[in-house]
Amino acid sequence: MKLKVKKLFMDAGDLYVVVLNSKTLKKYALHPLDRIDIIKGKSRLTCIINVGDKIVKENEIGVYLEVYKKMKLRDGESVEIELQEQPKSLMYIREKIQGKTLDYKKIYEIVKDTVNRDLTESEISAFLTALEIHKITMEENEYLSRAMIETGNKINWGKKRIFDKHSLGGIPGKKESLLIVPIVAAAGLTIPKTSSRAVSSASGTADTMESIANVEFTLDEIKRIVKKHGGCIVWGGSVDLSPADDIFIQVEHPLEIDPMFLPSIMSKKKSVGSTDVVIDIPMGREAKVKTISSAHTLAREFIELGRRLSMRVRCAITYGEQPIGHAIGPALEAREALETLMGNGPNSLIQKAIGLSSIIFDMAGKKKPMKLAEYILKSGKAEKKFREIVGAQGGDPKLKPKDIHIGEKKFDVISKKSGTVFWIRNFQLTELARTLGAPKDKGAGIYLYKKKGYKVKKGEKLFTMFSESEAKLDNALEKLKKMEPVVVRERISQEIIMDVIKEVKR
Amino acid sequence: MKLKVKKLFMDAGDLYVVVLNSKTLKKYALHPLDRIDIIKGKSRLTCIINVGDKIVKENEIGVYLEVYKKMKLRDGESVEIELQEQPKSLMYIREKIQGKTLDYKKIYEIVKDTVNRDLTESEISAFLTALEIHKITMEENEYLSRAMIETGNKINWGKKRIFDKHSLGGIPGKKESLLIVPIVAAAGLTIPKTSSRAVSSASGTADTMESIANVEFTLDEIKRIVKKHGGCIVWGGSVDLSPADDIFIQVEHPLEIDPMFLPSIMSKKKSVGSTDVVIDIPMGREAKVKTISSAHTLAREFIELGRRLSMRVRCAITYGEQPIGHAIGPALEAREALETLMGNGPNSLIQKAIGLSSIIFDMAGKKKPMKLAEYILKSGKAEKKFREIVGAQGGDPKLKPKDIHIGEKKFDVISKKSGTVFWIRNFQLTELARTLGAPKDKGAGIYLYKKKGYKVKKGEKLFTMFSESEAKLDNALEKLKKMEPVVVRERISQEIIMDVIKEVKR
Repeated sequence: MKLKVKKLFMDAGDLYVVVLNSKTLKKYALHPLDRIDIIKGKSRLTCIINVGDKIVKENEIGVYLEVYKKMKLRDGESVEIELQEQPKSLMYIREKIQGKTLDYKKIYEIVKDTVNRDLTESEISAFLTALEIHKITMEENEYLSRAMIETGNKINWGKKRIFDKHSLGGIPGKKESLLIVPIVAAAGLTIPKTSSRAVSSASGTADTMESIANVEFTLDEIKRIVKKHGGCIVWGGSVDLSPADDIFIQVEHPLEIDPMFLPSIMSKKKSVGSTDVVIDIPMGREAKVKTISSAHTLAREFIELGRRLSMRVRCAITYGEQPIGHAIGPALEAREALETLMGNGPNSLIQKAIGLSSIIFDMAGKKKPMKLAEYILKSGKAEKKFREIVGAQGGDPKLKPKDIHIGEKKFDVISKKSGTVFWIRNFQLTELARTLGAPKDKGAGIYLYKKKGYKVKKGEKLFTMFSESEAKLDNALEKLKKMEPVVVRERISQEIIMDVIKEVKR
Repeated sequence: MKLKVKKLFMDAGDLYVVVLNSKTLKKYALHPLDRIDIIKGKSRLTCIINVGDKIVKENEIGVYLEVYKKMKLRDGESVEIELQEQPKSLMYIREKIQGKTLDYKKIYEIVKDTVNRDLTESEISAFLTALEIHKITMEENEYLSRAMIETGNKINWGKKRIFDKHSLGGIPGKKESLLIVPIVAAAGLTIPKTSSRAVSSASGTADTMESIANVEFTLDEIKRIVKKHGGCIVWGGSVDLSPADDIFIQVEHPLEIDPMFLPSIMSKKKSVGSTDVVIDIPMGREAKVKTISSAHTLAREFIELGRRLSMRVRCAITYGEQPIGHAIGPALEAREALETLMGNGPNSLIQKAIGLSSIIFDMAGKKKPMKLAEYILKSGKAEKKFREIVGAQGGDPKLKPKDIHIGEKKFDVISKKSGTVFWIRNFQLTELARTLGAPKDKGAGIYLYKKKGYKVKKGEKLFTMFSESEAKLDNALEKLKKMEPVVVRERISQEIIMDVIKEVKR
């Protein structure tokens, strides 16, 4: 059947929606929410049907903007429509629910149909939930990685060695990539850093960078920037490197599951053409990785998966008991990173940036890697490189820290007693920052004055909350009533009994 | 914040969608696909945000028809909008993913948020997948049933005994409810039969009945029909009896999972006020229940869940190796049921209707229950009662079988050899009927001339396929190439080797 395209000026997030007249539905025995394929030349797109009799006539098909763009349609042209059958991959999802191990062909089919939007969110969710419950084998990790790489774009840099770095989540305030990329690039190495946006944290590296420069580029633009400056800090999702990963993350996020942990990271690294990767594994009681032994196990898995995908991987286990630096939230973190590059930053951030950069230098065969990293940061070479990259990504290369816009609604949280900071609750800080609007609202976040071991006087500020919306600040204040993100104790040594767990009342 | 309602003449299936201007989004730091609550007086509805700058102005909120109706909005009125936080029930879904057993409070929360559409399909899918994998305990069966009953409407019939009947799926052509309801009601008993639409079959009882009468009524209308005529055959989903069940089924269907098997059935029965229920468990190699022992286990579970919900339950294990009667698909089945009530029907359908009715009569304390059921059917009393009910449900009480519209595109499938029908493949018949358009296209389906043990001559018709669309008939013919739904063998006794399973080629 053929229908006439009518462009609708509507946007449904990332879903492909078309609107048909109810007479058209009746004629072709279709129903709302059914899936149909639109065909134009060699391209084909699966769309979800909505109904709107006042919007389109019987022989028309109203298309949302995503469909219009994706299919390069013109208003008024004719397109072919085909009924969509159940994708084969649904059968393999059912097998995974039943606990079967999937081979490469089946995994590829699921990943391909995810990327092509032939599977609904609900079907993808069933797949991810089943993976989460049944766990995945190293073979499945490899197959998932390969399928995710295969169904996306890939950058080929020729024979060059390409360096990369990735930090596992869980620690608020991880802005060190904004230092590591310029340090490594300033040493003449290539580091095309593609980052994710925040999944469950207050700011992903892409969110942070986005508060001072663009992070969405085409593959060609990224190549041009990296060839010229040696590095970039961009969002991986905009260039369809392992696009399945971005879709999986969207579904996993509200469920707080993460079965694709390894393939998610490694497929991105491989797609961008990295040959040498440092994985930072922050360890701490509220980090993703809680014990030294699980950090070691995970490191071995990263190295093995890297081997299977022909990448050299080195892992660093880092201190993850509290935020890196003081700032949490995109704009606040970008400001702190810039200040640190300009020579005025917190020690924890400097140490982490230098430490991880030196591992990359060591992999690259540089002499005295630690000294080299320190020199590049302290001499201002890293700042210069950073400003180059910011400029290349459409930001202001002369940016001053105070130019970075922070949310104007704010609230200072005061210590009710004098003493020492005994404990920082990362989860609570993250939850507060997210309630304040981070990462979507760039200016939202938390500035933490007092970290572990700091002396505090009664009435002193522990941290300040920033938001762009009064309502969100109110929500955060409401949540804070039941929280204690910064725990102050009068005399730590005396408090041997740290907490008491009471019996459940029945 | 307050926004002005603009009615959009669009329909998104069962999703609640609103359209905002991108300036509104910016202003309130919202994003496409975020959820917001619309508040009007005491009602509140969670909606998904789409963006459309040419559709609505900055202070307007475009509402889809479902939202407009559900909230009883008027064009141009002001409504209050609130940011929607993550529902608490998501935490309990995560617990279920981790394999924890949920108590009543948590299950209630999940079911409530499902009904209120506070959980997305993807979140509901994760819950159902986790239930499917971890299995549910009898306690959870009870809690799910109670929560599903609690979050929907309930009919209270006073102290009266209310009879009911339910058949498990898997067998094509199960139209016996169209006979059992009038037989039972004609004996003076009350049987308010609410049925589902097809989940994975070619026609649910509601679909079948809908081809000759209305099946969507309000609770008051159902009560009035049943009080006057003793019975009804209506769709359960239209009256919000256990509405969670309808949502769960929608999500389960493409995944072919059914973790809520028992609560799904029992919550519907309890909500409608039934006190005495017969559960028909068809058993066969291609039925839902495959062995006599699993049928017995399931029967015990139904009886136990019934006890916990204060219902008397009796189970009948029935022959489920092939279709009941000859017709598969809504209109074809309705026609066969009517013919049978008029004295001209297949033996398998007559036996099943009489058999299950007699169990209800026995529970009601009637003498010679089998004789009574047979008498009511053969004397024409059941037909009279059926016509009363059809009339009460807005159908034509004088309906003749030939008045029932069957799809006009048809194809006869001919036997390529002479012999005896050795085997019927239920799954293939169902898949064919669904490909032909059933159950959504009422006239689509299959009429099966030759059942197990029938003699067939080469060139004789095995079955006829009916469709309302040429494209769907073509699809079915394409599928049929790889199928053999009716298996004819020349001499059954000689074919000891029924099938050969070959090694996999590597």
